[in-house]
Amino acid sequence: MMLRDLKEKVWQANLELVRLKLVTLTWGNVSGVDRKKGLVAIKPSGVSYEELKPSDVVLIDLEGKCVEGSLVPSSDTPTHLELYKAFPDIAAVAHTHSEYAAIFAQAGHEIPCLGTTHADVFYGPVPVTRFMRRAEVEHDYEKNTGRVIIERFQNLSPADIPGVLVAGHGAFTWGKTPGEAVENSLALEKIAKMAFGTLLLSQRRAVFPRYLLEKHHQRKHGPGAYYGQKRGGKR
Amino acid sequence: MMLRDLKEKVWQANLELVRLKLVTLTWGNVSGVDRKKGLVAIKPSGVSYEELKPSDVVLIDLEGKCVEGSLVPSSDTPTHLELYKAFPDIAAVAHTHSEYAAIFAQAGHEIPCLGTTHADVFYGPVPVTRFMRRAEVEHDYEKNTGRVIIERFQNLSPADIPGVLVAGHGAFTWGKTPGEAVENSLALEKIAKMAFGTLLLSQRRAVFPRYLLEKHHQRKHGPGAYYGQKRGGKR
Amino acid sequence: MMLRDLKEKVWQANLELVRLKLVTLTWGNVSGVDRKKGLVAIKPSGVSYEELKPSDVVLIDLEGKCVEGSLVPSSDTPTHLELYKAFPDIAAVAHTHSEYAAIFAQAGHEIPCLGTTHADVFYGPVPVTRFMRRAEVEHDYEKNTGRVIIERFQNLSPADIPGVLVAGHGAFTWGKTPGEAVENSLALEKIAKMAFGTLLLSQRRAVFPRYLLEKHHQRKHGPGAYYGQKRGGKR
Amino acid sequence: MMLRDLKEKVWQANLELVRLKLVTLTWGNVSGVDRKKGLVAIKPSGVSYEELKPSDVVLIDLEGKCVEGSLVPSSDTPTHLELYKAFPDIAAVAHTHSEYAAIFAQAGHEIPCLGTTHADVFYGPVPVTRFMRRAEVEHDYEKNTGRVIIERFQNLSPADIPGVLVAGHGAFTWGKTPGEAVENSLALEKIAKMAFGTLLLSQRRAVFPRYLLEKHHQRKHGPGAYYGQKRGGKR
Repeated sequence: MMLRDLKEKVWQANLELVRLKLVTLTWGNVSGVDRKKGLVAIKPSGVSYEELKPSDVVLIDLEGKCVEGSLVPSSDTPTHLELYKAFPDIAAVAHTHSEYAAIFAQAGHEIPCLGTTHADVFYGPVPVTRFMRRAEVEHDYEKNTGRVIIERFQNLSPADIPGVLVAGHGAFTWGKTPGEAVENSLALEKIAKMAFGTLLLSQRRAVFPRYLLEKHHQRKHGPGAYYGQKRGGKR
Repeated sequence: MMLRDLKEKVWQANLELVRLKLVTLTWGNVSGVDRKKGLVAIKPSGVSYEELKPSDVVLIDLEGKCVEGSLVPSSDTPTHLELYKAFPDIAAVAHTHSEYAAIFAQAGHEIPCLGTTHADVFYGPVPVTRFMRRAEVEHDYEKNTGRVIIERFQNLSPADIPGVLVAGHGAFTWGKTPGEAVENSLALEKIAKMAFGTLLLSQRRAVFPRYLLEKHHQRKHGPGAYYGQKRGGKR
Repeated sequence: MMLRDLKEKVWQANLELVRLKLVTLTWGNVSGVDRKKGLVAIKPSGVSYEELKPSDVVLIDLEGKCVEGSLVPSSDTPTHLELYKAFPDIAAVAHTHSEYAAIFAQAGHEIPCLGTTHADVFYGPVPVTRFMRRAEVEHDYEKNTGRVIIERFQNLSPADIPGVLVAGHGAFTWGKTPGEAVENSLALEKIAKMAFGTLLLSQRRAVFPRYLLEKHHQRKHGPGAYYGQKRGGKR
Repeated sequence: MMLRDLKEKVWQANLELVRLKLVTLTWGNVSGVDRKKGLVAIKPSGVSYEELKPSDVVLIDLEGKCVEGSLVPSSDTPTHLELYKAFPDIAAVAHTHSEYAAIFAQAGHEIPCLGTTHADVFYGPVPVTRFMRRAEVEHDYEKNTGRVIIERFQNLSPADIPGVLVAGHGAFTWGKTPGEAVENSLALEKIAKMAFGTLLLSQRRAVFPRYLLEKHHQRKHGPGAYYGQKRGGKR
């Protein structure tokens, strides 16, 4: 078995989606890429998580050609591949229809930054793509899903904003590892739920100072980060 | 014991309703039909799920006559039977009062298609029946419940729309197997919750392009379906 | 140990409140009465459910005098006793601050009957008491809590409406056994959640025909009841 | 190992935050102080709860100097220390981003007292700090977080109001023990959820008489308290 370690991490991350209640039935998938070999490991399509084994994880190249595995890869595979090609610094992608992320996606509503929980993970609003046009849906739908995400990130950094809402659909998040991509899916769902409640409570008006966003994101991710055990910077 | 396999599947599907938190107390039931023998296996009425055994499942014919089993069948049995007689291609029915499906049913509000999660399962809005009239309630209430569902489906396909809301009551879903009927109950509940949140967030206005509905439903259920492992069509 | 069987049922029912997520910390209690002996078994005050043993359950008479047990009974005991004295046909009382029941109680809002789930258990709206007056709060507060409930039931039947909301406080439910009182607490919480969502979705207008309420309540509780296994009436 | 008992209690209380679903990922922390020794035991920063051992708990003095432990203490440590210095009667602090507490914090909305559940724990509204100014965020952010809390409590008693919302951020609660601080976090979250629902249901108007607040708080915490097993006063 090639890339056994990557397959195991992808398998584990897919199960984690279930354990964290981020997916229902088979509505989600995680992939990871080996940048040196140019190979992507991804969940097979429509296989239930309970039956999923590490050896079921499918290996494909960045053009989608199957390299190892007897199952059909996730139907969302072309979206994952577009993201890997456009965002060279990411190494894993997770896709969910988690409830509150989907609520914002269905409303075509970005998630505004309303608190430090958000600021800790996303350096600004979680963006929402435009709705896809008829022609984009009818031909190469999943590839075009990737393209509208990339279009939305023209002036955004995927490192600063590790996720996106696809209008009318759900969420894609990414990270350096399959586990990190899933953690970002979890954070996105919690942030979406809190933003939903905040907007309802405050009658759709709520503010959060930009300098507080900067502080919280920087203390965790900036050059002088001092949150956690393993980062550099003065403490 | 006749139809042991069908009884086991019906028993299993009833327990699944509980595990998925789609029923409270005894507020739900699943049945399955053997079309060749013309026999229906259904949960007995008011028996708690914890005590339910495969042998408690009641066998009746399509007119409701008991063929095997010492317990009284679910009081909703006549509704199930009407559906089996009117929709020849279904082989299982599930009934729940799951929370968000019941919220839409109580509001007399169909569930509009607001996203791809919905489109993957229901090929259009989840319809709601009209409220039943006094005479329909006072005589043959459960049979008439089936009839208002069938009336609502006059111009709809039960294969494309595998479920319905009964106004002021709850949900009925169906499928090719008891397990599939329960999966559709689960999908309906999640879709209802997402639609509820979307409508609240967007102040009751939300749109989803028809061509996206068609694409998502077709990629999973259409002639060229390419979602999952077992369907035909080009990939 | 006197009334061992009653104490065990009361103990079991208190634990059930926790398992069903109807109480947080120690915010709830269940009691049961032996009508022949005139004795009430009730949870001790402020004891955590994890540590609770059947022998901790306190036995008191209907005037509140301790008959067996070394612990102080629940501070809500006088409310339970008023209910037992005023409603001769009930044999158990449960008190919770379950979330959605408390939301309606805090809003001073009865729970209108909006669906068959409600109609199956409560034969009309779940009533809410008036807010208690200053003098009623300052002296004999818990006894007066019972009295405002009884006042609210002047023209209502405790058999038809097995529970009530106390304005600004929470829920009391009752039944023939401690288990049934807890089942009614669970039903009340689910009904409250569904009504909450229905009212939000339908902008606070929602209707449910009275004849449907009558049908659903009667098919379960009326003289010709045909729901469940053990009731009489023709089927 | 110094202060083994305090470290174990702090460790246990941090795990309790997870078990009670009050934290996601590493978004929370609990500390405890030994007033005689002037030492604080606190969760290390960014360590996952699953891996946390009692010996990982960091010991620092009230100026933040590390006394025992090889890990970096929680980045929120300076906030905890300010609270210990300003509120001499508290012995433990818990910090969470629990969902409904965060919703109120993000809305910059105090939690009004709307029911007896609230009154049992908080003797008045749960206050919210003002938003911090740019300069307070850019220098000594975590210490200044403590200071805006203390500023908000100028005319409030930390014994009567065992918690606070920090605007745009989350909740801090305190108590006599780490376990009690966590219990207050749990109570705050439940109270916030109930208040959220009450405000939505009653269109943002809801009232609760002041004398009922006084009664409920006093029967649990006042000089003549009669709730629970261990307090004094007549019964």
